Amino acid sequence: MAHHPEDEHHMRAALALAARGLGTTSPNPAVGCVIVRDGRVVGRGWTAPGGRPHAEREALARAGEAARGATAYVTLEPCSHWGKTPPCVDGLREAGVARVVAAMRDPDPRVDGAGFRLLREAGIEVTEGVLETEARALNAGFILRMTQGRPLVTLKLATTLDGRIATKTGESRWITGPEARRRVHALRGSHDAILVGSGTVLADDPDLSCRLPNYTPRPILRAVADRRLRTPPTARLFQGVGEAVVLTAPGHGREAMDRLTAAGASLVVVPPADEAGDLEPLALLKALAARGVTRLLAEGGAALSASLLRAGLVDRLAWFHAPAVMGGDGMPAAQALPVETLRAMPSFRRTAAIPCGPDLFSEYERA
Amino acid sequence: MAHHPEDEHHMRAALALAARGLGTTSPNPAVGCVIVRDGRVVGRGWTAPGGRPHAEREALARAGEAARGATAYVTLEPCSHWGKTPPCVDGLREAGVARVVAAMRDPDPRVDGAGFRLLREAGIEVTEGVLETEARALNAGFILRMTQGRPLVTLKLATTLDGRIATKTGESRWITGPEARRRVHALRGSHDAILVGSGTVLADDPDLSCRLPNYTPRPILRAVADRRLRTPPTARLFQGVGEAVVLTAPGHGREAMDRLTAAGASLVVVPPADEAGDLEPLALLKALAARGVTRLLAEGGAALSASLLRAGLVDRLAWFHAPAVMGGDGMPAAQALPVETLRAMPSFRRTAAIPCGPDLFSEYERA
Repeated sequence: MAHHPEDEHHMRAALALAARGLGTTSPNPAVGCVIVRDGRVVGRGWTAPGGRPHAEREALARAGEAARGATAYVTLEPCSHWGKTPPCVDGLREAGVARVVAAMRDPDPRVDGAGFRLLREAGIEVTEGVLETEARALNAGFILRMTQGRPLVTLKLATTLDGRIATKTGESRWITGPEARRRVHALRGSHDAILVGSGTVLADDPDLSCRLPNYTPRPILRAVADRRLRTPPTARLFQGVGEAVVLTAPGHGREAMDRLTAAGASLVVVPPADEAGDLEPLALLKALAARGVTRLLAEGGAALSASLLRAGLVDRLAWFHAPAVMGGDGMPAAQALPVETLRAMPSFRRTAAIPCGPDLFSEYERA
Repeated sequence: MAHHPEDEHHMRAALALAARGLGTTSPNPAVGCVIVRDGRVVGRGWTAPGGRPHAEREALARAGEAARGATAYVTLEPCSHWGKTPPCVDGLREAGVARVVAAMRDPDPRVDGAGFRLLREAGIEVTEGVLETEARALNAGFILRMTQGRPLVTLKLATTLDGRIATKTGESRWITGPEARRRVHALRGSHDAILVGSGTVLADDPDLSCRLPNYTPRPILRAVADRRLRTPPTARLFQGVGEAVVLTAPGHGREAMDRLTAAGASLVVVPPADEAGDLEPLALLKALAARGVTRLLAEGGAALSASLLRAGLVDRLAWFHAPAVMGGDGMPAAQALPVETLRAMPSFRRTAAIPCGPDLFSEYERA
């Protein structure tokens, strides 16, 4: 449906504001709001870290009396239910907003159209679906958690041109350059959690921190999929800021589990998928969603990447290609899926290609 | 050395003209020439297909009387020797050109500074080295053949994001899309010859043609490295326009060789490199240079790619990445080199990254 260009213009601004919150608002959605009166922006807001205040409240506070008779552009249907704060619908009504333009309905069953209904009942004009596709992409993590009980999964890989993540002797530091590694921290900053396999912890002992320029390290949930509980309590990922979670299979002894909890980890037991005892990837994701994770950055290694790809659970790819060729004895980016035919390959659609120092960064979404 | 901006401006135009000839002038260099009088371009030329007329002759013919007192910008030192045509130095002198600006000296031992000397002796002002780096890159194939007796090697690969060229069952058509395949034909058009391994011929039976939009198929030398003479006489690469060459090891029977020559192939015997009898990659390249090849496009498969990379003989990479992931049981882009450490990897420098339909094309030169 075509909408008024001015509505799309202001909604685009609201979407850009919303994006600022990605990675800091979970389990709440990252929302943006712009309040416009007589063609002039009188208030802007986005969801604060932790998920509140909501974007509408922030924008209304900035607009003050100017909100009376104004149009509010919001990237998600305003909430209609009492949480820790009064519903945004009340705030918009009390401020005297005349019209609300929203990008999409809130899939949260506590809202799901009730916000729009209450606004209309209060005499406020409502326009729905402006830049809905863009809003759905922005809110993909929140929507997937609400509708499928799992987070959005971005698989990040840093490989040679021929798709190798390490030499056969295990050397992987560093295939990509400092610019790419800085961008990985920015990627982490827009996700709620990082997931790696235990093989990666044993091989590389990554700290999985999120360090952004001019910021103290940002808290981020670090999770390791480790059915055999091989992760040592001394692993660097336990020492960072934010929660550390070990996802494992049932049947481990109390002592092994205590050692990890003593290191500061939360242990989550998920059912294994098959007779080999491998963890079921969807169960892993659901366990993380249950802890509030809406956007997950999976950072390998080859076993975890293959497991997620095989299960069709990779929503986006973030791929760094270093300008080098390793050859056939290097460690592959993903273990065998296996794939018999080209049609059976997990396929994607490119959304960006960005030079990143000597490396080439490209992003994809599920095709 | 910094040159006058106007000189660099006209030389850039001459280099762009020169590039039009790449792939059609071998064993001669692809040269461009711009003739400028009083700031106005009065003649332009580039090396004609087959290598003559030379660029200077073409530009002088267009300039006519306007060349008197003008400046000629040439991407390579004008020739000083009689070939099938009189030397360009004579042409420039007879036309009354007052000044010659050249990008680089001609490494051909028959010229090698003699052109500049004769011009100066004729009272013509000579400026050397304007955009020399760019000219050396453009003439890299001609220079390598002159100085090292081998062509420039561009290795072309079309892989998944994780560097796979086919499924384990051998399915490879098509990993990349039609836009990428069209660009491959343009790549072929700027090279003098294509080289593949016999495994690729047996697996894919490629026709290795060079079809450019609105042109009849362009003649191009197609070569196959085939020490065991496995290529069938019915191979499609023998049916194209231009010469087909089978490069093989010594010791094959007359009958096997006759079958291929009857199919239209030229047979070239090169010494094998090692006790396993594999062909020595430098010997392959020298055999092609001896036939006049200055720019070679190597198009795989995994054995040939590894052989060239291992020997340090890949000057440029042309890589198409399809937006898909195949996983660890797919066929690798290059066999084991082998590489023990990251420092030992063949490394490159990116020169371009261009979206190509759904695929991403990136180009590299030796780091």
